[in-house]
Amino acid sequence: MPTIVVDVMPKAELLDPQGKAVTGSLARLGHGAFQNVRIGKRIELTVEGEVTDELLAQAQQVADDILSNGVIEDVVGIEVVE
Amino acid sequence: MPTIVVDVMPKAELLDPQGKAVTGSLARLGHGAFQNVRIGKRIELTVEGEVTDELLAQAQQVADDILSNGVIEDVVGIEVVE
Repeated sequence: MPTIVVDVMPKAELLDPQGKAVTGSLARLGHGAFQNVRIGKRIELTVEGEVTDELLAQAQQVADDILSNGVIEDVVGIEVVE
Repeated sequence: MPTIVVDVMPKAELLDPQGKAVTGSLARLGHGAFQNVRIGKRIELTVEGEVTDELLAQAQQVADDILSNGVIEDVVGIEVVE
């Protein structure tokens, strides 16, 4: 069954406390090469049958309105896999 | 600056309560076309300079050992963007 993958990240201009904590942990563990970490969501929507343009538009709307909080997050990608 | 994107999802054989809740909400809101929802993490690691094979191997190790919990999660993708 095809899957629509929606990627949601905290807005670039906002502090990401979870990511900051992981950045610090990685540095302490000897992985300072990763200078910054930001953590968002990857949401997989499974659909039955074909992914039509209409369904993809519906997914975009759901991503913007329901799956992400536009005040603090951006939908950075929507793609169909498999 | 190049970014390494690590995608982590709950293991396929495990129930994903957060995803199940969203699946139910979408159905109630008239988006029943999305029959199943699973929610994982998208982690962006920013590095300075070039992404070498060595650094990518280090990212793979960090993804497996630190960024994901192998008991309940799978690293489903590691890719370099920009």
